[in-house]
Amino acid sequence: MNKISKAVIARLPRYYRYLDELQQQHIERISSKELSELMNVTASQIRQDLNNFGGFGQQGYGYNVQYLYEEIGKILGLGVKHKMVIVGAGNLGQAIANYGNFKNRGFDIVALFDKNPELIGKKTAYGEILDIETLYEYVKVNKVEIVALTLPKEPARAIAEKLVDAGVKAFWNFAHTDLRFSDDIIVENVHLSESLMKLTYRISEKNNKQ
Amino acid sequence: MNKISKAVIARLPRYYRYLDELQQQHIERISSKELSELMNVTASQIRQDLNNFGGFGQQGYGYNVQYLYEEIGKILGLGVKHKMVIVGAGNLGQAIANYGNFKNRGFDIVALFDKNPELIGKKTAYGEILDIETLYEYVKVNKVEIVALTLPKEPARAIAEKLVDAGVKAFWNFAHTDLRFSDDIIVENVHLSESLMKLTYRISEKNNKQ
Repeated sequence: MNKISKAVIARLPRYYRYLDELQQQHIERISSKELSELMNVTASQIRQDLNNFGGFGQQGYGYNVQYLYEEIGKILGLGVKHKMVIVGAGNLGQAIANYGNFKNRGFDIVALFDKNPELIGKKTAYGEILDIETLYEYVKVNKVEIVALTLPKEPARAIAEKLVDAGVKAFWNFAHTDLRFSDDIIVENVHLSESLMKLTYRISEKNNKQ
Repeated sequence: MNKISKAVIARLPRYYRYLDELQQQHIERISSKELSELMNVTASQIRQDLNNFGGFGQQGYGYNVQYLYEEIGKILGLGVKHKMVIVGAGNLGQAIANYGNFKNRGFDIVALFDKNPELIGKKTAYGEILDIETLYEYVKVNKVEIVALTLPKEPARAIAEKLVDAGVKAFWNFAHTDLRFSDDIIVENVHLSESLMKLTYRISEKNNKQ
């Protein structure tokens, strides 16, 4: 397969989501025109993007939904199991644990951790909430790859540093702070309040026009 | 004030967050060099971006932290109160309600709604969780501007449509589906699983290089 451009890759999760929905509706194939109406992008953009995945978009046939779903999944790194723990088992941590269809997408949430004695020992769909004191040892022994940080910014940085020492290679960071490590540590920041500010900016822009 | 470019605006929430932290540390002024080290962007980018906010970055003085914080807040639409309700009072809804420093940033979370009888009536920091049956009337009477949708994708679309009929102008959408309305309705989608896929893509890209 050819090298796929960054711009295409940024759009892949959205294709993946739509193809997942189509599969759930037992739709086996779809034309670029139908997909373009569904996704509200141009058919030519879709053809260009999906041409990266070989000749499976055929004139008069369209795309094979399952094939395309699986290929895009592989590119997105979903073809292999990723062990993930969640640090911070409050509302956000538990929401993340229950969010989406992680198991089917190759994510294996193996444990949640918290320092709050009221949460430690509580049962969740992903096993018991464990004491954060046992986190570093757990991560080492179980070779955990991804850590979701759903805790306040103050402890997040120090905990992340200790996790890097314990061998963690990737963070899905919800803490209200930017984490920075050397290039071999991957950090994906989710700053929810920044997304809300984009919303209020657009509201105020609209109000100023009126 | 001149019209500010889209690229600059996209960066404003991050400046706003750092300036907030500086304020909390009682730092009154900062040079573009110091801010650039803190934020890990070039000083020249910072100067260019912040030049949009008048001549307050002065040679030998630097930036006035509070002034810049307030000006950026105004641009981001945080200078006025925004009434927000949260629909879906499960873990994610409650996490959002408790996330960040909404009150100080002009967000007034006036209510949470759910259809789950076990949640209805439960007290939160933002008042009681209300029955979703009362949502549309509530939104009309209280002129609610923003609705955060923290519920599964199946009901989200129909509920959002009824909310638009009830006068809602903006959605902060966490449901695993794209909402589409006419141009005067603002939708900010937060698709958490897509952010996680960006993370796994980067992991797999790194592994392929090794």
